[in-house]
Amino acid sequence: MSKKVLVLPGDGIGPEIMTEAERVLRFVDSKFGLNLTIDQGLVGGAAIDAEGTALPQRTFDLAKASDAILLGAVGGPKWDNLPPADRPEKGGLLKIRSELDLFGNLRPAILYPQLADASSLKPEVVSGLDILIVRELTGGIYFGQPRGIRALENGEREGFNTYVYKESEIKRIGRQAFEAARKRGGRLCSVDKANVLEVTMLWREVMIELGKEYPDVELSHMYVDNAAMQLVRAPKQFDVIVTGNMFGDILSDAAAMLTGSIGMLPSASLDINGRGMYEPCHGSAPDIAGQGKANPLATILSVAMMLRYSLAEGGAADVIEKAVEVVLDQGYRTGDIFSEGCQLVSTSEMGDAVLAAL
Amino acid sequence: MSKKVLVLPGDGIGPEIMTEAERVLRFVDSKFGLNLTIDQGLVGGAAIDAEGTALPQRTFDLAKASDAILLGAVGGPKWDNLPPADRPEKGGLLKIRSELDLFGNLRPAILYPQLADASSLKPEVVSGLDILIVRELTGGIYFGQPRGIRALENGEREGFNTYVYKESEIKRIGRQAFEAARKRGGRLCSVDKANVLEVTMLWREVMIELGKEYPDVELSHMYVDNAAMQLVRAPKQFDVIVTGNMFGDILSDAAAMLTGSIGMLPSASLDINGRGMYEPCHGSAPDIAGQGKANPLATILSVAMMLRYSLAEGGAADVIEKAVEVVLDQGYRTGDIFSEGCQLVSTSEMGDAVLAAL
Ligand SMILES: CC(C)[C@H](C(=O)O)[C@@H](O)C(=O)O
Ligand SMILES: CC(C)[C@H](C(=O)O)[C@@H](O)C(=O)O
Repeated sequence: MSKKVLVLPGDGIGPEIMTEAERVLRFVDSKFGLNLTIDQGLVGGAAIDAEGTALPQRTFDLAKASDAILLGAVGGPKWDNLPPADRPEKGGLLKIRSELDLFGNLRPAILYPQLADASSLKPEVVSGLDILIVRELTGGIYFGQPRGIRALENGEREGFNTYVYKESEIKRIGRQAFEAARKRGGRLCSVDKANVLEVTMLWREVMIELGKEYPDVELSHMYVDNAAMQLVRAPKQFDVIVTGNMFGDILSDAAAMLTGSIGMLPSASLDINGRGMYEPCHGSAPDIAGQGKANPLATILSVAMMLRYSLAEGGAADVIEKAVEVVLDQGYRTGDIFSEGCQLVSTSEMGDAVLAAL
Repeated sequence: MSKKVLVLPGDGIGPEIMTEAERVLRFVDSKFGLNLTIDQGLVGGAAIDAEGTALPQRTFDLAKASDAILLGAVGGPKWDNLPPADRPEKGGLLKIRSELDLFGNLRPAILYPQLADASSLKPEVVSGLDILIVRELTGGIYFGQPRGIRALENGEREGFNTYVYKESEIKRIGRQAFEAARKRGGRLCSVDKANVLEVTMLWREVMIELGKEYPDVELSHMYVDNAAMQLVRAPKQFDVIVTGNMFGDILSDAAAMLTGSIGMLPSASLDINGRGMYEPCHGSAPDIAGQGKANPLATILSVAMMLRYSLAEGGAADVIEKAVEVVLDQGYRTGDIFSEGCQLVSTSEMGDAVLAAL
């Protein structure tokens, strides 16, 4: 049976990095005889321009029918004046996440030894960094009801959102995090604000309950403000971090930036059956779009994650990850990770180098 | 007319750092003839132990009658099993903030050149760092209603909190931030998540409106995830940051940790008339309490902030800040900021050194 992959280049640098990632995907497909069916779709600003909506029905149908989705990036100033619900982010990205129930967002923050210089942190603080942030992606304050802006009796307005989690939602993301910790260093830190927010008191309670089923995983708890501090102070103390949607958004970006090379970091968003969407951690970078400057490696590494998590092709994933290491060893660098003595290459030259290493 | 200062040592290292801060306060009081009336009160765990409540009526009455409050720190494992609303944090600290309408939290993150080594970031990234985070402190999700944990029809529970801001709340913290930016570098960055949360769409709208009254201040906007990244990547790009209660909690702790010396950072929480509570940014550190290891400088610098903002004694404030610089130049260090070649001192020896420098 052929497995279906949907490719969604999106906006900004999305199309150019996706071109390289798709070349890599097609190469391993034929090399390993994976028998993939690869489709393309429009999403985000590109879809708004072409069809008037950030998530056209055809894209949505294809997405639902796929085993895995590979996404570039969405959004840009061009669409920032639309009503928020229609923009590429909310109308496209958040809608796919939510409609496909992709509740489990895995965001590794890994420092490649070849790129140690790129970090703004001291080498001894970050060398060897390898942490995984597991972020709940389809609940919490991102999707909670009621929400909106209303007029008060005194004439002024009030904005409001609801931060809400059910036990079952906490449990399923908790399980995913415990399983991930089990396969890694065996340590899980759950991040909350249980000294202030009731919703995270429940979160902590559920994590503690769940922990009893995973006696081999060492569970700890940390308040989100302290977690932000500890990520800056001594990030290597962490193995796996699990947290809600909003805190996860903030902490995973901070963690990614610790490596100094966010252009290298992939991510996975999984449903309960392991079907998933894969995307680089960086955004659509409209300022450098179309100039061949973007780093395609995060998207190429997202292909590897996709092969491993959703397509059960860990062997092919390993080969891609190895090829990326080789390319770094060879000294090829796009602008974002460039340092003295290395060779500056364009987006497509970086793709060429990875294919050559494959 | 004598001005009234209420001293609340609190828990953990609170009493020992407060002893030193109070010595400094009494010294400048008599040296500059400030004619202060200094009272002491119980708050937090200390108050729970003595009177069964984290904010006794006497403390509350004294607080209401004071021109300024100096707080050490509250909380510790001893009280962590109480119901959250009764704990030192929520029942003491958050209650004072809210009841006294201390909505404007000023948190400077300054890197002292003498302590540049203490940062986990590369010297060139943080040297000369001097940013101010203005955090809204009495609204947002910390205080929003409805909140709680409820049973759903299917038998499971759900936790919920409400993130809410009225225009008037946003305006008053906005004004404070614009005023602060005007007195500093003239740049204000408002942090929100306006691409997802309606409450922060209103936040952004109000900030833009307000900006028209401050044409001399350069206003920019940043999403909170990006702000967390930018603080790690290039913190010196910021002058003043203004944000809501929850985001401010997270970002100000991350910013403080950039300096590597959170034991040095004071904070102010002000009401609309400039009455305020002053406290170190660090917590009660129960692990080192009573051992004479704690760094009293953040509390001593909080005394300086108090003199400047609430007691209109900027001259005395300058003198204290200068004395702290001298002590650092002389090489005195508590354990948290110690480095090779310096002289390790205890909490009280550090207090002695500051008094000597005064
Ligand atoms: C674009 C935005 C809505 C999104 C989020 O906040 O989830 C992004 O920051 C991310 O982390 O994927
Ligand atoms: C102790 C806690 C409730 C408090 C807060 O979250 O506001 C603290 O983290 C702070 O920043 O002063």
